[in-house]
Amino acid sequence: MHGRPRAVVLLSGGLDSATVLAVARAEGFDAYALSFRYGQRHAVELAAARRVAAALGAVRHAVVDVDLKIFGGSALTDDAIAVPHHDGPDLPAGDEIPVTYVPARNTIFLSFGLAWAETLGAGDLFIGASAVDYSGYPDCRPEYLAAYERMANLATKAAVAGKQTVRVRAPLIDLTKAQTIRRGLELGVDYGITHSCYDPGPDGAACGTCDSCLLRRRGFAEVGLPDPALA
Amino acid sequence: MHGRPRAVVLLSGGLDSATVLAVARAEGFDAYALSFRYGQRHAVELAAARRVAAALGAVRHAVVDVDLKIFGGSALTDDAIAVPHHDGPDLPAGDEIPVTYVPARNTIFLSFGLAWAETLGAGDLFIGASAVDYSGYPDCRPEYLAAYERMANLATKAAVAGKQTVRVRAPLIDLTKAQTIRRGLELGVDYGITHSCYDPGPDGAACGTCDSCLLRRRGFAEVGLPDPALA
Repeated sequence: MHGRPRAVVLLSGGLDSATVLAVARAEGFDAYALSFRYGQRHAVELAAARRVAAALGAVRHAVVDVDLKIFGGSALTDDAIAVPHHDGPDLPAGDEIPVTYVPARNTIFLSFGLAWAETLGAGDLFIGASAVDYSGYPDCRPEYLAAYERMANLATKAAVAGKQTVRVRAPLIDLTKAQTIRRGLELGVDYGITHSCYDPGPDGAACGTCDSCLLRRRGFAEVGLPDPALA
Repeated sequence: MHGRPRAVVLLSGGLDSATVLAVARAEGFDAYALSFRYGQRHAVELAAARRVAAALGAVRHAVVDVDLKIFGGSALTDDAIAVPHHDGPDLPAGDEIPVTYVPARNTIFLSFGLAWAETLGAGDLFIGASAVDYSGYPDCRPEYLAAYERMANLATKAAVAGKQTVRVRAPLIDLTKAQTIRRGLELGVDYGITHSCYDPGPDGAACGTCDSCLLRRRGFAEVGLPDPALA
């Protein structure tokens, strides 16, 4: 067995998770990328995830089927709920949790990551959560991730032996979208192969007007670059 | 909307989860039973889960596909690892975690339960974990379940509003198998329709010699009854 430590990286194929994969690689990890086919409308995400995993040198890229559609409750999994689009360049103000929130999604995704980490003997589990740009999702908050890590360290075989087993790593948690983009560009991420749009066209092109597209565009604008996904 | 509170009950179709479903119903909950098709060898479990959900009056029974096979690492999901069988009536002594342990299984199952609970507005999430008879599984320990509940109460929409959202309920946690059986018999559970065996025959019959069969048989012996699943 060779000596590089292993990490599991949750990879949607979007801007954030691509950056996180680059961070994990830069820290010297053998990265095991994990994506989910979860009944989402934007299956085009998975093609992006495959491109990103290959471009950033993941050792392996696994795609797990999880059926979140039966629970509904989100614009990303329920065809009866429309993805919101906006006219202006900014997201509307408000404290409402967006309808694109998928119940317990990060909890489910991290739990599959935890299973794989235990099987691989990986000590680090990376997720692209950010509490800055898009704080409406409860499961992107630092206190949630800290509680997840505490739980995870009681959940596994190593936990019974009293060992710390998994660090939940969210290197973007305090970064704005622009800061994330700068970090990724430093690490050589090609954002042209990523995909963040919640509601792409039939050809897979980003819509440019959903929450996720607006956040990306605003981030690139702050950096002084065009968004290559909207080029 | 009618007035009975809702609960999600993780239901494998085995002795423990059938008892837990009966407990939830006796407490006055509308029960939403949740089972998993997880690449396990014993798909016959799901037929038992369906029988139990119907017999105990679950409002709905959902079966979610989750692919744990890609991770391997357990005799229950990896065909290369044999389920252990025993000659005598007792489990061998030892502190080893059994090879039937599935990495992060309860964490994954509870997470789907949490998603459904959030969608349904259910405040209780029941699981048949016991720390007494079979303490080798890290994710059946009370400290694990308490940490899961803390995490869950930071994970959801209601969490953002500062509300307690989910109680993780493990009513069997301190019960021996015999005590569980007595409780279930009081509540009218028909254990003849449950299925606990890790390694059933082609006809679905329990083997009688795996860990799970031995634990059941010992429980029924203490109560002074034959195990109807081995009749």
